[in-house]
Amino acid sequence: MNHYPASILRLITHFSRLPGIGEKTAERLAMHVLRAPRKEAEGLSSALLDLKDKVRLCAECFGLSDTEICRICGDPGREAGLVCVVEQPAEMVAIERAGGFRGKYHILQGTLSPMNGIGPDEIRIKELLERVESGGVTEIVLATGTSVEGEATASYIAECLKPLPVKITRIASGVPIGGDLKFVDGMTLKRAMETRHVL
Amino acid sequence: MNHYPASILRLITHFSRLPGIGEKTAERLAMHVLRAPRKEAEGLSSALLDLKDKVRLCAECFGLSDTEICRICGDPGREAGLVCVVEQPAEMVAIERAGGFRGKYHILQGTLSPMNGIGPDEIRIKELLERVESGGVTEIVLATGTSVEGEATASYIAECLKPLPVKITRIASGVPIGGDLKFVDGMTLKRAMETRHVL
Repeated sequence: MNHYPASILRLITHFSRLPGIGEKTAERLAMHVLRAPRKEAEGLSSALLDLKDKVRLCAECFGLSDTEICRICGDPGREAGLVCVVEQPAEMVAIERAGGFRGKYHILQGTLSPMNGIGPDEIRIKELLERVESGGVTEIVLATGTSVEGEATASYIAECLKPLPVKITRIASGVPIGGDLKFVDGMTLKRAMETRHVL
Repeated sequence: MNHYPASILRLITHFSRLPGIGEKTAERLAMHVLRAPRKEAEGLSSALLDLKDKVRLCAECFGLSDTEICRICGDPGREAGLVCVVEQPAEMVAIERAGGFRGKYHILQGTLSPMNGIGPDEIRIKELLERVESGGVTEIVLATGTSVEGEATASYIAECLKPLPVKITRIASGVPIGGDLKFVDGMTLKRAMETRHVL
């Protein structure tokens, strides 16, 4: 590697620190930057700093935002009474991308995981309860993952919300659309059978 | 994609302009930068600009350098009389990485390609001839590629150098080390047979 000038080596090193970028790829990227117009390098360079400067958590849903209140929380066309609880911003993006959901979100920023020292105070559960208590929320859709931690987090939140006048639902688990029943794991199939619904 | 705040989207767009980085990977990289310490983003950001500011062509060999004369050309331990001619800096790096070559380099910055309007004046052939004419060079190793253009460029340079008192050699083509003879293409095998040497 040390056959390149120092400034190229430095960029290769920085690129190879990114996840999934090995040394060979980092080298190819650096060579691309070398050939590319200066404007392109400047664009990437400033976008990196911009992201670190501007992105923060939305004061309402704790999703990623570059304003005090994020675009979804600030959208009057969204059903304010319907709140979907997810673990991380990426899950919110996945649901948005799928389309169809017209409510708002609450991003927990994690799951309960006592083994790793993450209890109810470490994630945004208190803020969710406050949001429900302050009124206006009619339904909470628990869309945390189907891992042990995700399920435990959903159960815990459901328990906390029980005394409050709000409908609590859980996103359905089951056979994926287009999935072949014989390739679906037993746990999923069992759950799909238990939560079957009337057509 | 537009479910992210603008500053994240901008970084995703910039990442996805890099070669081999699709939208999904760009998204993953941006999320990594978001979680990573600010210092890491700053490092990559400044390395990008640094590369564009500092890297230039070595005044002697036209390889990549961040000084007037590159590390290899400035190395007194290198055999100044032995000059290896390659097409691009990447080939120089490959030869250096392989090790064993103790001479210097001359990077043409391309190959002759009349179809694409690249004639002898478009690449650094004149500079090579000047370098040989100014004395001190005893052997030129032509290590341009084995493509039609690479071969033509090597022939052309050999022709130009003929009148000068310099030994002209061509890097060997043949069966790769560890390669199975029956999987080697006919052209390579034919060449390997023609350029066989006495043991």
